[in-house]
Amino acid sequence: MNSTDGKTGPRFAPVILAGGSGTRFWPRSRRAHAKQVLALDGNRTMIQQTMDRLLPLASAKNIWVVTNHLLDKVIAEQLLPVPRGNILSEPAARNTAPACALAAFLLEPTEPDTIIGIFPSDHVIKDQARFDEVIRAGVALAASGERIVVLGVPPTRAETGYGYIELGETLDASTVPCGDLPVRRVKRFTEKPDKARAEQFVASGNYIWNSGMFLWSARTLANAIREHCPQMAPLLEKIAAAHKLDQRANFESLFAEVYPLCQNISIDYAVLEPRSAKGEMASEIYCLPADFAWNDLGTWTSLHEHIANCSPEEAALVNVCDGANTQSIIIDAKGNYVFAQGKTVALVGVNNLVVVETPDALLITTRERSQDTSKVVEELKARGRYDLI
Amino acid sequence: MNSTDGKTGPRFAPVILAGGSGTRFWPRSRRAHAKQVLALDGNRTMIQQTMDRLLPLASAKNIWVVTNHLLDKVIAEQLLPVPRGNILSEPAARNTAPACALAAFLLEPTEPDTIIGIFPSDHVIKDQARFDEVIRAGVALAASGERIVVLGVPPTRAETGYGYIELGETLDASTVPCGDLPVRRVKRFTEKPDKARAEQFVASGNYIWNSGMFLWSARTLANAIREHCPQMAPLLEKIAAAHKLDQRANFESLFAEVYPLCQNISIDYAVLEPRSAKGEMASEIYCLPADFAWNDLGTWTSLHEHIANCSPEEAALVNVCDGANTQSIIIDAKGNYVFAQGKTVALVGVNNLVVVETPDALLITTRERSQDTSKVVEELKARGRYDLI
Repeated sequence: MNSTDGKTGPRFAPVILAGGSGTRFWPRSRRAHAKQVLALDGNRTMIQQTMDRLLPLASAKNIWVVTNHLLDKVIAEQLLPVPRGNILSEPAARNTAPACALAAFLLEPTEPDTIIGIFPSDHVIKDQARFDEVIRAGVALAASGERIVVLGVPPTRAETGYGYIELGETLDASTVPCGDLPVRRVKRFTEKPDKARAEQFVASGNYIWNSGMFLWSARTLANAIREHCPQMAPLLEKIAAAHKLDQRANFESLFAEVYPLCQNISIDYAVLEPRSAKGEMASEIYCLPADFAWNDLGTWTSLHEHIANCSPEEAALVNVCDGANTQSIIIDAKGNYVFAQGKTVALVGVNNLVVVETPDALLITTRERSQDTSKVVEELKARGRYDLI
Repeated sequence: MNSTDGKTGPRFAPVILAGGSGTRFWPRSRRAHAKQVLALDGNRTMIQQTMDRLLPLASAKNIWVVTNHLLDKVIAEQLLPVPRGNILSEPAARNTAPACALAAFLLEPTEPDTIIGIFPSDHVIKDQARFDEVIRAGVALAASGERIVVLGVPPTRAETGYGYIELGETLDASTVPCGDLPVRRVKRFTEKPDKARAEQFVASGNYIWNSGMFLWSARTLANAIREHCPQMAPLLEKIAAAHKLDQRANFESLFAEVYPLCQNISIDYAVLEPRSAKGEMASEIYCLPADFAWNDLGTWTSLHEHIANCSPEEAALVNVCDGANTQSIIIDAKGNYVFAQGKTVALVGVNNLVVVETPDALLITTRERSQDTSKVVEELKARGRYDLI
């Protein structure tokens, strides 16, 4: 097992991406109180859980967070161990490529060999031991060359909401450092497929879900940006230079001026897809299986299944009445998820509903339709109801 | 048109029965805040609406209310025109026979010819002009002999939740005083039928719903109690004698001691059924059609239809988002009734639901099952949650 604290092995710097809003968790999630700062499944918020599972692998001083000005204060309060200066607030949302690259350009000048890990802030992972094992293997693999490591989740259904990765050659510890884990080269990245293609992917056994978690050295990532995003690289270098001077006021104004000039693009589109187009041997992209009970908690429905700790089929039989001091009376009802606080919830003759109540809003939908909650947020925006989004 | 203020025609004394709890309107209705004191369909509460529609027909000083100690204060506040002494609080719930009879024995000694009208406190009636006409005709008919007048609602469906009245001979204004209204003798009263019998009743055209509204003189009612409830009559005479002495403290203690000894029985079972068993000619029971857009608002589902002002079939297409400052966003949803206060309600892909939210409870059921809301109250009672019922 390789160490990742930088003392006896490569230094590891996790970058937590926390700029999203999670509109599918409305009415609990709001712009200034987004999904990642909510305690959806217990006492710790999603971003706190993200930090918690990284702390066995990295010093808190090496953890970075990229978020926005609506969320940075609450995130700083929630992640007390992380230095305030490591919490960067994007002056404008520019998707994941500039956010990931920013960290690379900040670290490259002084510690180019540090392995940057990109971690979304709103995932749940049940098997911490396996997570540790996979990340340590990934760090070692990323440190063994100009390699890019992506974590892929073995698909359990023909999901159309995720990107897929087509897998190539299978390698093992005799050829690359990967612990005892199976590792495969990446053939290509695929955008969210339609249902028919998703079914083909899953049936073939050669496709895996793109988890959005990546590992690569600061140098490798910075160079990849220089190669694939030649307009973005100098902008980020300028920002990094200002950051190094540590003159906070000057940095902030330059950051606010320059960062919005970056292309609004995901790291997948900006780097991984063009890189994988070089072919599986030349691209040097490797995939490790993220088989640590991962769930991206994308909708109320997946939260229902996560809390009930069961499959979608089983969840259709289980009622979850969630929220502080929530009690329930169930009469001929099953498969419902209800969130309310300090209330007695009575379900009579209803199935597969999702009902979420906050002091100013009440969402009523179904397990099947809960993904369309984001449409409610769109409608509220169209009506100018910024108090509710 | 006969006057009913007692100056130029028979005096009319409406008795509003307001002792019920309306558990099917939980969580809005509670023991101490029952259905009849709720403003379910506008600004006026059900019992205020009941008083409002009687005031064109009777002086407020002639209106009586029979309720209980949990509700009497709020009713007194809501019915300011009604003298406080006319609001009687039963020491124990004894169903409708003792409540109706109490008024008769109170009035009989001094004004035996006054026509007592029995009115439930939780009905809605849309056609006030027709209501006036029917009540005036009924008062005249009841005043023309030892006659009992019942108001029957023409059935619109094979409802199993109501009692039915089998109708006999048709009479008109040439034989009995009934304005221009059709009047029929009553053959018999029938308990709540099963579905098959209800369908037969409706198909036959000879059955009508028992509205629970009756008109008869104080003497006729008191004598009917003496005849059919020989044990109850002396108890109520004793209470009426104490009331006449007007020594409030003494009356209260005697009322509390004696009233609970009365049989717990409805006026239908106690008087109307045995009386009708004498045959339609001898019973002297007459039925007037209560064709004044009557609705007993028995369930959230019937409230939905009432507020949407449409049939059950039409209501299955109409969303009602009810409550103060409630706004709504509707996406692919129809036929839902939601009550919430000061909230934005979002419906996404749901149909025919009933959702009612209060500060301490949240009911989620369907239009089809909302009648089973009373089961929730039973369960709360079983759990000792008297704070919620």
